[in-house]
Amino acid sequence: MNFASDNAGPAHPSILQAMVAANDGYAAAYGADEQMRQLRARLRDLFEAPEAAVFLVATGTAANSLSLATLAQPWETIFCARTAHIQEDEANAPEFFTGGTKLTLVDAPDGRMTPAGLEAVIGAQGQRGIHGPKRGPVSVTEITETGTAYGPRGLRAVTAVARDHGLPVHLDGARLANALARTGAAPADLTWRAGVDIASFGGTKDGCPGVEVVLLFDPARAEEFEYRRKRSGHLFSKHRYLSAQALAWLEDDLWLTLARRANAAAARLAAGLRDRNIEIVFPVEGNLVFFRCPRGLHRHLMGAGADYHLWEGDLDGDDDTPLVARLACDWSARDEATERFLSLI
Amino acid sequence: MNFASDNAGPAHPSILQAMVAANDGYAAAYGADEQMRQLRARLRDLFEAPEAAVFLVATGTAANSLSLATLAQPWETIFCARTAHIQEDEANAPEFFTGGTKLTLVDAPDGRMTPAGLEAVIGAQGQRGIHGPKRGPVSVTEITETGTAYGPRGLRAVTAVARDHGLPVHLDGARLANALARTGAAPADLTWRAGVDIASFGGTKDGCPGVEVVLLFDPARAEEFEYRRKRSGHLFSKHRYLSAQALAWLEDDLWLTLARRANAAAARLAAGLRDRNIEIVFPVEGNLVFFRCPRGLHRHLMGAGADYHLWEGDLDGDDDTPLVARLACDWSARDEATERFLSLI
Amino acid sequence: MNFASDNAGPAHPSILQAMVAANDGYAAAYGADEQMRQLRARLRDLFEAPEAAVFLVATGTAANSLSLATLAQPWETIFCARTAHIQEDEANAPEFFTGGTKLTLVDAPDGRMTPAGLEAVIGAQGQRGIHGPKRGPVSVTEITETGTAYGPRGLRAVTAVARDHGLPVHLDGARLANALARTGAAPADLTWRAGVDIASFGGTKDGCPGVEVVLLFDPARAEEFEYRRKRSGHLFSKHRYLSAQALAWLEDDLWLTLARRANAAAARLAAGLRDRNIEIVFPVEGNLVFFRCPRGLHRHLMGAGADYHLWEGDLDGDDDTPLVARLACDWSARDEATERFLSLI
Amino acid sequence: MNFASDNAGPAHPSILQAMVAANDGYAAAYGADEQMRQLRARLRDLFEAPEAAVFLVATGTAANSLSLATLAQPWETIFCARTAHIQEDEANAPEFFTGGTKLTLVDAPDGRMTPAGLEAVIGAQGQRGIHGPKRGPVSVTEITETGTAYGPRGLRAVTAVARDHGLPVHLDGARLANALARTGAAPADLTWRAGVDIASFGGTKDGCPGVEVVLLFDPARAEEFEYRRKRSGHLFSKHRYLSAQALAWLEDDLWLTLARRANAAAARLAAGLRDRNIEIVFPVEGNLVFFRCPRGLHRHLMGAGADYHLWEGDLDGDDDTPLVARLACDWSARDEATERFLSLI
Repeated sequence: MNFASDNAGPAHPSILQAMVAANDGYAAAYGADEQMRQLRARLRDLFEAPEAAVFLVATGTAANSLSLATLAQPWETIFCARTAHIQEDEANAPEFFTGGTKLTLVDAPDGRMTPAGLEAVIGAQGQRGIHGPKRGPVSVTEITETGTAYGPRGLRAVTAVARDHGLPVHLDGARLANALARTGAAPADLTWRAGVDIASFGGTKDGCPGVEVVLLFDPARAEEFEYRRKRSGHLFSKHRYLSAQALAWLEDDLWLTLARRANAAAARLAAGLRDRNIEIVFPVEGNLVFFRCPRGLHRHLMGAGADYHLWEGDLDGDDDTPLVARLACDWSARDEATERFLSLI
Repeated sequence: MNFASDNAGPAHPSILQAMVAANDGYAAAYGADEQMRQLRARLRDLFEAPEAAVFLVATGTAANSLSLATLAQPWETIFCARTAHIQEDEANAPEFFTGGTKLTLVDAPDGRMTPAGLEAVIGAQGQRGIHGPKRGPVSVTEITETGTAYGPRGLRAVTAVARDHGLPVHLDGARLANALARTGAAPADLTWRAGVDIASFGGTKDGCPGVEVVLLFDPARAEEFEYRRKRSGHLFSKHRYLSAQALAWLEDDLWLTLARRANAAAARLAAGLRDRNIEIVFPVEGNLVFFRCPRGLHRHLMGAGADYHLWEGDLDGDDDTPLVARLACDWSARDEATERFLSLI
Repeated sequence: MNFASDNAGPAHPSILQAMVAANDGYAAAYGADEQMRQLRARLRDLFEAPEAAVFLVATGTAANSLSLATLAQPWETIFCARTAHIQEDEANAPEFFTGGTKLTLVDAPDGRMTPAGLEAVIGAQGQRGIHGPKRGPVSVTEITETGTAYGPRGLRAVTAVARDHGLPVHLDGARLANALARTGAAPADLTWRAGVDIASFGGTKDGCPGVEVVLLFDPARAEEFEYRRKRSGHLFSKHRYLSAQALAWLEDDLWLTLARRANAAAARLAAGLRDRNIEIVFPVEGNLVFFRCPRGLHRHLMGAGADYHLWEGDLDGDDDTPLVARLACDWSARDEATERFLSLI
Repeated sequence: MNFASDNAGPAHPSILQAMVAANDGYAAAYGADEQMRQLRARLRDLFEAPEAAVFLVATGTAANSLSLATLAQPWETIFCARTAHIQEDEANAPEFFTGGTKLTLVDAPDGRMTPAGLEAVIGAQGQRGIHGPKRGPVSVTEITETGTAYGPRGLRAVTAVARDHGLPVHLDGARLANALARTGAAPADLTWRAGVDIASFGGTKDGCPGVEVVLLFDPARAEEFEYRRKRSGHLFSKHRYLSAQALAWLEDDLWLTLARRANAAAARLAAGLRDRNIEIVFPVEGNLVFFRCPRGLHRHLMGAGADYHLWEGDLDGDDDTPLVARLACDWSARDEATERFLSLI
């Protein structure tokens, strides 16, 4: 009953087998390997973006920070949801890579920024001329940290605000696969056709040991990204093992199959919780389920071996206080674990 | 006949098999996995350093830059050999991670700094008070970029200069295994017992897909290193695949076996070149061979399929000019390739 | 009727005369001048801090950023009021000087943080271990950006929260003179005795052409501050002109006289506005007055030559909407201007 | 007999009087003052650059670092003379402001880079693709740190090398006035017509209390410079005192008069030393004289009250060792001091 993180699950076996298969003889280092060439072509096809620059890194923080540093000047501020990973979970990595931008937070009640909310915050930020930070990129997340997904239209509505102000758009796609699985949208429809300039497409939470694709839809930004990746230590010498992961993950749309499995597991969990009159806090549109129940029940569940994180408060205290918790499903989540978890309630 | 880089060779199969074996069920993320616990204990044993803090990252640039940032203040200068990887091959990564230190270069005729050379440079740097950078860490490399190795005594003589000035010492151990194989020294004798404060112990060039151990012999520096790793995107969520690599690499001293193989291949190459009256430029004390021959011969060798890098000049020009080139041997280098290469001369 | 900024007013003539007097023959550069020696002694007396390190810079942004960089690690977050100058008006200078800290904002209804408000925000920030920024310094402002002053007891109550969490405290004292004039507190009571580690004591807004004192009550931090000042270009070669300003400003408590004048002018303005039934938005406890009146009246006042800044909204729009504006009084504010301004209403 | 530094001398009285005169009533802050408007026009005339963006800062380090940060990307390296102020005397300020560029040093036997020397270094730097830093701006100094001046033709020959490689050019003009006085060149001929993109024009060493002009000949770079100045704390609120200094310094070509005086004093010193068979080390082409004499004589001179800096070695040791020292003449240097100094020999 491990719902702690989609990072806690294993990789899909076929991806590791592809790494083993790639381990044959010599291969050009630093991304000049043959598999990277193939991967680049595949990704350009998948995203209908024949000009896109494609890079691989091993962590989501690297993908986000390098992308934001490529889009933002150090004296700008980045607009993002109050709950965004870049704000909450990267220990000032965006500030480090950008040379000291600020992050300006937009309320996002269910994880998604609204066009009006974004407009209000952008409007407020920018009345101090040279004294305040300049307006910089808007960063959106698919699926959001609270498990909701922008659809193509919703995403376009948000990016339109950025465009109106002449601001570029970054998409943190650590769980983009889950959003694509949920919405059925074409990858282009949740990225460049929706106004995104740089997107990550995360493999790590979707069945890879550790690889994140970064797509720069404007190839003029590629050289800057490449130097930033190198000088932050994120250019792998034995790059073939990243290439092989990503290639296997794309093979026969494995990425989509795995994301659908994770989403389905979350949907089952949510349905079961609802059946038991447990409150679901945010719409379940990916592989994350947020639910609220009394502390005593959390203690009971965890005591029985369920592994997941509280989203607010902690286990110490009275039994009755309701607390929100997060369940994260990965591709390997098994129905038995779900059933066992639900049966405990 | 691939002698281009020890990064071009494959990983040892048993290391990939260990990654496959690690791919079973759930594991705690971000370095809290069980294999990391085992690995930490093993490394502390191997280095006779029961208090050392141990971290894993995936690239040598990350290992070096994070270590230097932990040892240096932004207003200091780092002393290193003119040929050091941190100076030549990391696209200003140390400057980025440290927040803008300078690197002050020490002549190192065969890749090794001499105590007198280091003393002279440190002495010269530091006469300007607040106007010049303050003296900061000394960074040494094992084996050096030109293939020579410090022995324990030689290393102690260099670090003694640092100690006399109250400066900490960093060891870039991307090829430390080769130095240990060559010198037969105990790991402690080329690190903390020789006055090193933070050392990397590189797996990537010695048969791993991509893992570098960082050892902080003063555990009081661990928290800083840990935050720096996190905020530079070098903390892996699915950390178990790094742990598994490193653990398999240590198993039955595989690291030493592989380094010995690479060193032996280089020794064979060097002997064969000397037999053919080709000048060997630096003492061959690891897995790198630098040789000088006329450009025409380089063209002939490369034309026949030998893959290696010129260390000076380029292939365009007259036949007679002598040019230095580097041959890098990895653990998988085969005798046939060596023989074929030598037979071409 | 210039109430735009305390930066728009002239310097006190005696301060410029002191600069002229200092312009005699040779003087040691870079702060080794004789006047700096005298100044250091005077400031240590005034602040009852015989060990304090004392530095001069020319701008408030430099004073704040250098102080915060000395107190914060790059992976930390700084706690400050939502309206703080370091957040609103320094174009990411703290982020630049610190190497990329975050600023975590505390609601401060009247400009002052409350102990409970600060405690809540510090508590919330720090539940993510290595993934979130670490808790860093607390920054307070005297007088606040909205014109209110912490008294010694109120300030101690806020800094006590920082101390309980082991966090250092910075005081942005760009208008500390106004707070001292208002509260009658001893300088020590609004700085180190109230738990402040580094404070600025601003001359620029209080009658100097451009000088800010920085006091480090723990002299062990002096070397770091000194290097940071040098490498940010804030160490003046002809330092005597900074020393002379500051010395003349301290002479016969001129700093206090000037701050009292500015405060008195603000008090007169506020009283006059209240008499005319104009709403005063924040307690007037220094040289700043915030008032709310219909946009039409703002247009009338500005049209008649009153120079001040709207704090919200802009002049375009209907007449009736009430808008908050700020009046800043400097030491040279004249009663006639005040009377004329009030008579316009 | 103060020849320690052109920073140790006083300001010209008329410049301080202009500051006093500027101290009248209210003036717009942050560079929007009327005097700045006038100054901008004057400087554009003087430099025959009607489009140039003009900024003021208070220190040479700020001028250099802000200019270099505007011209260089963080992953680039800056080419400069081994003796350059930005390398030797700014405590890593360029590295800080640029976000971590490297400085690559060019041998400059008499302080001036040669076109061939620069070409060789640029050529060597750039053979490592993404692994090495990218080639960045070339920084030249007028007059050089060793007292020599580039003439227009010599400067063009150096900048031509930069242009051939597509690299921008920065001019550290802390003593540009001395070079203009020496060469008689038009300001344009030692700046933009000689291929310079951004130049400083230093007032501080030429009779001002503390002001440096920065000229960006391509106004498209102005916004970036402006944000960088603001966020580094170098935008002065009471800017009028900088404007007034600079305006008075330009009045009736006072800047030129003062630089000529300083140069003449140096010429007299050099002539007197040569008459006494003291070796002059570098051509004396500005206000700096480098001479070599036995340590015993240095001790004698300093013991008799001469104030100047040794350029190598120190006073401790035998009498006979010859040591190089620097004499810096400022505008206020008096003939009596020169005569007295020479008479001591």
